[in-house]
Amino acid sequence: MKAVGIVVEYNPFHNGHLYHVQQARKETNSDIVIAVMSASFLQRGEPAIVSKWQRTKMALAGGVDVVVELPYLYSTQKAELFAKGAVLILTEMGVDSINFGSESGRINDFVELFKAMKEKNLAFDEHVKNFLKKGFSYPRATAEAFKQLHLQPNMLALNEPNNILGYHYVKAVHEGKRKINVSTTHRRQAHYHDQDVPASSIASATSIRQMLKKENGLSKTTHVMPTSSSLLLEEYIKSNLMLHDWEHYYPFLHYKVMSSSAKQLQSIYECEEGLEFRAKEMMQTATSFQEWMEKMKTKRYTWTRLQRLATHILTNTTKEEIEEGLSTESLPYIRLLGMSDKGQAFLNQTKKHRQTSLITRVAKAEGIMAVIEERATNVYFTPLSPAIRGLQMKQEFNQPPFRMQSLKKS
Amino acid sequence: MKAVGIVVEYNPFHNGHLYHVQQARKETNSDIVIAVMSASFLQRGEPAIVSKWQRTKMALAGGVDVVVELPYLYSTQKAELFAKGAVLILTEMGVDSINFGSESGRINDFVELFKAMKEKNLAFDEHVKNFLKKGFSYPRATAEAFKQLHLQPNMLALNEPNNILGYHYVKAVHEGKRKINVSTTHRRQAHYHDQDVPASSIASATSIRQMLKKENGLSKTTHVMPTSSSLLLEEYIKSNLMLHDWEHYYPFLHYKVMSSSAKQLQSIYECEEGLEFRAKEMMQTATSFQEWMEKMKTKRYTWTRLQRLATHILTNTTKEEIEEGLSTESLPYIRLLGMSDKGQAFLNQTKKHRQTSLITRVAKAEGIMAVIEERATNVYFTPLSPAIRGLQMKQEFNQPPFRMQSLKKS
Repeated sequence: MKAVGIVVEYNPFHNGHLYHVQQARKETNSDIVIAVMSASFLQRGEPAIVSKWQRTKMALAGGVDVVVELPYLYSTQKAELFAKGAVLILTEMGVDSINFGSESGRINDFVELFKAMKEKNLAFDEHVKNFLKKGFSYPRATAEAFKQLHLQPNMLALNEPNNILGYHYVKAVHEGKRKINVSTTHRRQAHYHDQDVPASSIASATSIRQMLKKENGLSKTTHVMPTSSSLLLEEYIKSNLMLHDWEHYYPFLHYKVMSSSAKQLQSIYECEEGLEFRAKEMMQTATSFQEWMEKMKTKRYTWTRLQRLATHILTNTTKEEIEEGLSTESLPYIRLLGMSDKGQAFLNQTKKHRQTSLITRVAKAEGIMAVIEERATNVYFTPLSPAIRGLQMKQEFNQPPFRMQSLKKS
Repeated sequence: MKAVGIVVEYNPFHNGHLYHVQQARKETNSDIVIAVMSASFLQRGEPAIVSKWQRTKMALAGGVDVVVELPYLYSTQKAELFAKGAVLILTEMGVDSINFGSESGRINDFVELFKAMKEKNLAFDEHVKNFLKKGFSYPRATAEAFKQLHLQPNMLALNEPNNILGYHYVKAVHEGKRKINVSTTHRRQAHYHDQDVPASSIASATSIRQMLKKENGLSKTTHVMPTSSSLLLEEYIKSNLMLHDWEHYYPFLHYKVMSSSAKQLQSIYECEEGLEFRAKEMMQTATSFQEWMEKMKTKRYTWTRLQRLATHILTNTTKEEIEEGLSTESLPYIRLLGMSDKGQAFLNQTKKHRQTSLITRVAKAEGIMAVIEERATNVYFTPLSPAIRGLQMKQEFNQPPFRMQSLKKS
């Protein structure tokens, strides 16, 4: 059986994702689609709107055959480490190819860029360093360095988040040990940051989340996602009484910042250059997460970079822990979240080739990666009412991977 | 002018306290009553139901002439350190005597006990140590040791919280540098732990708090406290939308415990003998502070001891900090919270004799004692809504000591 790997957040799973799953399978002529999906906290430093379990069900209902967890260690990192972790996991899962969505839809754009960058690597790094010194944010410094090197004007610009990710997927695959084919699917959807849900059937996840929040319900979003996603979102709201949003975590972030010493905050991952003092100072007057973020924002730091810092403060994730987690080249485990019948057949067939243990229960998770993950999961459920929180943590410990059949029955 | 010192929590100020202020003044023939009052967190490991500012107003309205702060460093300690800190502050404030309330009302009971204990100190400590080894709680071990020494049966039993405090006041005064007279006022009130507010005009603070919580208002408690206390409580509820209770802090305690490593919890003051693991384990299922405490309780640890641990975890107060704070014999500062005209005259008159600086603004607070205090104050206001919390923290920074006049005007 031939398998294609995709890297996803499904926050939530919508028609654009459905299209991507179908195209990835078709374009690579694969029998199996394997998704590595961010667990509780996402690349832009945000909590996922619903738990990984609910998003796993969405993925399975949307045609994905195997869902494995992208742990916090990688899911909350800048593009390079995020892509590295995702590709590492997909490689271990035995995929033959990796497919990612992009605006350009032409894989050559990415490969050419990668080759050009490889040649000019040192010069590029030097330029980036200089622009950072000038006080530019990382994405802007990257884009400026790109200009300085006079790379062909029709090459992909590295200041677009999806291009950066695509570039790093290509890079990670090329640097990996196994030969894996990389392809890209042309994204049939509004621009990533667009905030209005269009009347057509494709909308960005960002715009869908904003509409869900604004409408406090699903009324305006059902036409841009599969019925299964709508039903699963509805089910989550019904049993958990909320969709997760940074504002729900702000009281805890506030408490954490105000009850920590500057030294304690300094030990947190991505807390650099006096951000600990800035975080404390801005918190004295900010009455919401949005307000705090607006006060925190400077030219040097992107919104995303600061949101990731907020996530690490909230989850109490230290530099030391991330360093330890990233220090080994091999993964301690891969956690299986769900599978279809075909997915299971593939897993059985590839079992003997896998070097990393594929775990089905959290009890078997090991090492610092598991410690970080358990704590992040606990924090993710913190804003729920105590009884519901207890149920969610129980599920986290007892839930075996979802099967498509069991999904249909329930 | 002659001054008498008293040690108070005023949680809230009631008729029993009013009687004590009057009697202390009368019995010691003093012109001035100086109260050292616990700031935000109290000796039994609880948040005060209203802020120290509101309780300062209650004290001034109840006839106290000077209110100074008993900082967190001492206010959340077992009897010995609590008494030591309070007596240290009152001594520095230049009191001629100290008066405390007790069931016995006879100071000789305490002095005799102190003398007897002094003689048998080593033997007593040895007995206590042995009973602790047997798994007894500290108060019970103390009481058993007391029995073993065959001290006279009509002596005060050291398993009563107020007797322990009284004993330690006497001890701290005797061990202090200045000659201060100690006396005790017979408590005209229900037993400390009684939970029903009696129809008569005297009730314990515990029973008043429980009635306030049960009735969600002041309807059943106005007859057991001065009108000023009722009005000030009402005012606090109106502007802060709550009376502080451990349950309001439970979400934050839960978050703190679940997001901390065992090693981080071990660094917290009073976290001993694996209590960090117990705290985590019991929190997985407890849905309220009450439930968590009931699960935490063992024969070895009293409720109070565990509540104090919970307070230190909540406020992130470490062993290292408390050790540093207690390591110096002299106080870094004393914070003045309020005064009457007579109180101010006394402060002016005694100014030249004071060795410790009496500060009127928190900006002048120094050292680790101030660091602990500021953080505890921040945490104390954490459960309030963000806007109200901001106002309270602003008051904490800008509020000069209250004057009786300014109280009457407002």
